[in-house]
Amino acid sequence: MDHFSITAKDPGSEARAGKLVGSHGTVETPCFLPVATKGFVKALSSEDLKMCNVDALISNALHLYMRPGLAVIEKHGGLHKFLRWERTLFTDSGGFQLVRNFSYKITDKGVIFKTPDTGKKIEFTPELAIEIQKKLGSDVNMVLDHCPAWNAPEKKVEDAVRHTVEWAEIAKSVFSGNALLFGIVQGGFSIELREKCTRALAKLDLDGYGIGGLSIGEPKDWTHKILEKTVKFIDESKPRYLMGVGSEDEILLAVANGIDVFDSAFPTRNARHRTIFGMNGKYNVGNMETLQSLAPLEQGCECYTCKNYTCSQVTHYLRENDSLGMRLASIHNIAYMEKFMAQIREAIKEGKFMDVYGERLRKLKGH
Amino acid sequence: MDHFSITAKDPGSEARAGKLVGSHGTVETPCFLPVATKGFVKALSSEDLKMCNVDALISNALHLYMRPGLAVIEKHGGLHKFLRWERTLFTDSGGFQLVRNFSYKITDKGVIFKTPDTGKKIEFTPELAIEIQKKLGSDVNMVLDHCPAWNAPEKKVEDAVRHTVEWAEIAKSVFSGNALLFGIVQGGFSIELREKCTRALAKLDLDGYGIGGLSIGEPKDWTHKILEKTVKFIDESKPRYLMGVGSEDEILLAVANGIDVFDSAFPTRNARHRTIFGMNGKYNVGNMETLQSLAPLEQGCECYTCKNYTCSQVTHYLRENDSLGMRLASIHNIAYMEKFMAQIREAIKEGKFMDVYGERLRKLKGH
Repeated sequence: MDHFSITAKDPGSEARAGKLVGSHGTVETPCFLPVATKGFVKALSSEDLKMCNVDALISNALHLYMRPGLAVIEKHGGLHKFLRWERTLFTDSGGFQLVRNFSYKITDKGVIFKTPDTGKKIEFTPELAIEIQKKLGSDVNMVLDHCPAWNAPEKKVEDAVRHTVEWAEIAKSVFSGNALLFGIVQGGFSIELREKCTRALAKLDLDGYGIGGLSIGEPKDWTHKILEKTVKFIDESKPRYLMGVGSEDEILLAVANGIDVFDSAFPTRNARHRTIFGMNGKYNVGNMETLQSLAPLEQGCECYTCKNYTCSQVTHYLRENDSLGMRLASIHNIAYMEKFMAQIREAIKEGKFMDVYGERLRKLKGH
Repeated sequence: MDHFSITAKDPGSEARAGKLVGSHGTVETPCFLPVATKGFVKALSSEDLKMCNVDALISNALHLYMRPGLAVIEKHGGLHKFLRWERTLFTDSGGFQLVRNFSYKITDKGVIFKTPDTGKKIEFTPELAIEIQKKLGSDVNMVLDHCPAWNAPEKKVEDAVRHTVEWAEIAKSVFSGNALLFGIVQGGFSIELREKCTRALAKLDLDGYGIGGLSIGEPKDWTHKILEKTVKFIDESKPRYLMGVGSEDEILLAVANGIDVFDSAFPTRNARHRTIFGMNGKYNVGNMETLQSLAPLEQGCECYTCKNYTCSQVTHYLRENDSLGMRLASIHNIAYMEKFMAQIREAIKEGKFMDVYGERLRKLKGH
């Protein structure tokens, strides 16, 4: 494989370190992508993201298609320009957001829904998802998939797998250009359906595989069982992307199972809700205690926020609901996630991932 | 006068250019102060403000006294440190905000009110206003004044003048240190009371004089009449500060009458509400037309926003209600105001203020 190479394997787990090469540079894996769903990472400029050592972002084809619309982004010269982001850019098709946030109807051809802005009926097909992503010029395109609810009946999950595979075949057939094309494995919480979906997608020899339909409300032990099994079905030479995850403990577990790519709104959403990430676990700012603290948000942290502001100042801005506080807390949480991922990569290269894993989990659980 | 010197006078008006020297540097006048009422300029970092060429800010003693509280600011080493602002810092006492936003009772000794947070009763006296500002370490302290409503009966306005003068006497008697102390002229819309108030304050030989109680809802021609007369009562060797103003046309008129200092939340509030300032007048972003525009917010503008973002991008962020848009629009509007003030100073030095004044007013009125 040209675009993905594994540079180190951890002896104590399935964890691996690698390099994903796209048209806008190389991303070291395991990596974490902040979300720029609507064409920006909430509250942050691209300078802010670079200060946080972010190498890649993920945006959303369907969201951008609706607002601001493709014409606006094409006018700017593509999504990289619109985002002021010269580094690697993933785009999700938006199918997942669609079924979570809108009323819709799924047919064999795609998803039919009405845009909330104009009420216009849109038929969102696998062809359209690829066409949009090509126009956006993203480096990693995701196929349109069908993600059933975690507690959907088996018949629905079977339909979802069939759609997901058929739509991936269509996506592959209409896809062209320099971007990478990733499929998405569905199959709910049936190991058989997950295997069936993965094997069918493997025939398309896509550039990478996302795992969808996890961490969508199901019991944690279901997630872990399906994750562990599904990863094994995916060709180990391909990059594996656990979509929409997430938290540190989930990332550690998934890396141990061989996942390479993550994305989540978790760090920025937490920041806006006054939750700060740190090596000793998360904590809340915005109370009278943190208002007294002259320490940075995290001792020893090298991010812009921690180098320039006290915990007290950030607390004050957040208590007054000012967006400066949301920006500063988001910078810290994103920088924290990037540092966390760098530590994971380092540990894998040193063959010590399981030590780091155990130690982090103990810290996160407060032991 | 050491702290204030007039460097140029306009031949065609009362306009003058000068230098106001405080403990944290020199501010060229006429100048505009962005407001950091609660200990920050909404949505902006101090780096942002410096990029906008801001020389001085104004914060608010009473607001900071309530939240985050003096202890927090003293812990940081004073308000300059808490604001991360090494340049000139004015503080208003907060009396005006108090009577506008809280229920209160005015006695001869000060203003009694309950804090919205804790319900605690506070007696806000001229002594306390000075004590707070000393602890904050601001460069220009304002006395506590009594600002009646624009349509208050004459008896109330007379009381307000009496309080304002008595409280300024008390403020002067308890004041110590290197900061400058400014009085505030009240007197409603009676020229006689304005004169009486100014003459009484002049006996205290304060370092400068604010004009309060204007632009608080009264008809425009009242404002202009009182402004014109009141400025003349103030010793011309003293800096004159028109509090809470404001818009470009008001600033031009006031400069022509000899005002040196302005402050207002106008540029930042407008920015958050999608109104962009420009040499050709204000306009609204956030609509489908500005979403299409690849131009900067203002052609030829050198601010960070205009150098890096299209009007379309800023429109998109604002339409999606993201704080990135509020930050970028605020940067532009503040930079615009600073540029506008620099042009005014330049015009005064060149003896051409009235030409610039006339030309700007014509542009602002769209002729």
